[in-house]
Amino acid sequence: MELTLTGEYAIRVLVFVSENIDRIGFQITELALECGIPDQYLRKIIPQLTKAGILVSQRGNGGGIKLAKSSDEISLLEVIEAIEGKIFLNKCLLSPDFCNRTSWCSVHCVWIEAQDKLKEVLANRSVKYLAEQNKLNRKKLTDSP
Amino acid sequence: MELTLTGEYAIRVLVFVSENIDRIGFQITELALECGIPDQYLRKIIPQLTKAGILVSQRGNGGGIKLAKSSDEISLLEVIEAIEGKIFLNKCLLSPDFCNRTSWCSVHCVWIEAQDKLKEVLANRSVKYLAEQNKLNRKKLTDSP
Repeated sequence: MELTLTGEYAIRVLVFVSENIDRIGFQITELALECGIPDQYLRKIIPQLTKAGILVSQRGNGGGIKLAKSSDEISLLEVIEAIEGKIFLNKCLLSPDFCNRTSWCSVHCVWIEAQDKLKEVLANRSVKYLAEQNKLNRKKLTDSP
Repeated sequence: MELTLTGEYAIRVLVFVSENIDRIGFQITELALECGIPDQYLRKIIPQLTKAGILVSQRGNGGGIKLAKSSDEISLLEVIEAIEGKIFLNKCLLSPDFCNRTSWCSVHCVWIEAQDKLKEVLANRSVKYLAEQNKLNRKKLTDSP
């Protein structure tokens, strides 16, 4: 019950791009260096994020890697599900065929509740919000004596 | 980010024992049959639950497998953590040494929030509550035309 490293890296890249939204486009090597992600690893992640419509990758002058839409329209949940697939805390939430107890099983309902709460938190945090908070948090660290 | 089958089976057994709290003690074979769990699989789960102080297993007349404490003192969270270890949705919650960004990373705070909400739901549901709900749900199904 843990986010994969791939998911962690995907979030890190998107928040970084969002923090530097004024820059025209990024190269993978640059993103890898800035975000502390192995270059080859990142080369596998970027296509998943472009396929999901979160990033675009354009060749030529003025090209590079950019957000495909506004950073306040990209939630943490969307990023995680683009990489890991839909979140299901238990197999019985994936398919009612998993278990013949679903019609009466009280634990099934608790899983629904727990999953909804988890997804709600992740859905309510946009990449834009995370980028802004990072800037604020770093400023506080720099300003503190 | 999904419960293991072992966790699923552990919950199922405990709720079943709680539903049948008036019976003196269970044998593993009986529990396996009643809960639809492979016998050999269950033989590996029971020691984990006894070690965690959730079940006791006594030999001899009047023995068998029983709850180690009142079923309203056993939460779903306790059962899951007895089997899977402490819940950590991301490695950065397991140890601050995982990542050198923790002091300012806004995503870290969202993970804390999401994890707290998830654990709160699981901590607030006791095995006793789940057993009672199961009985009610099955009664509704039987009573419905």
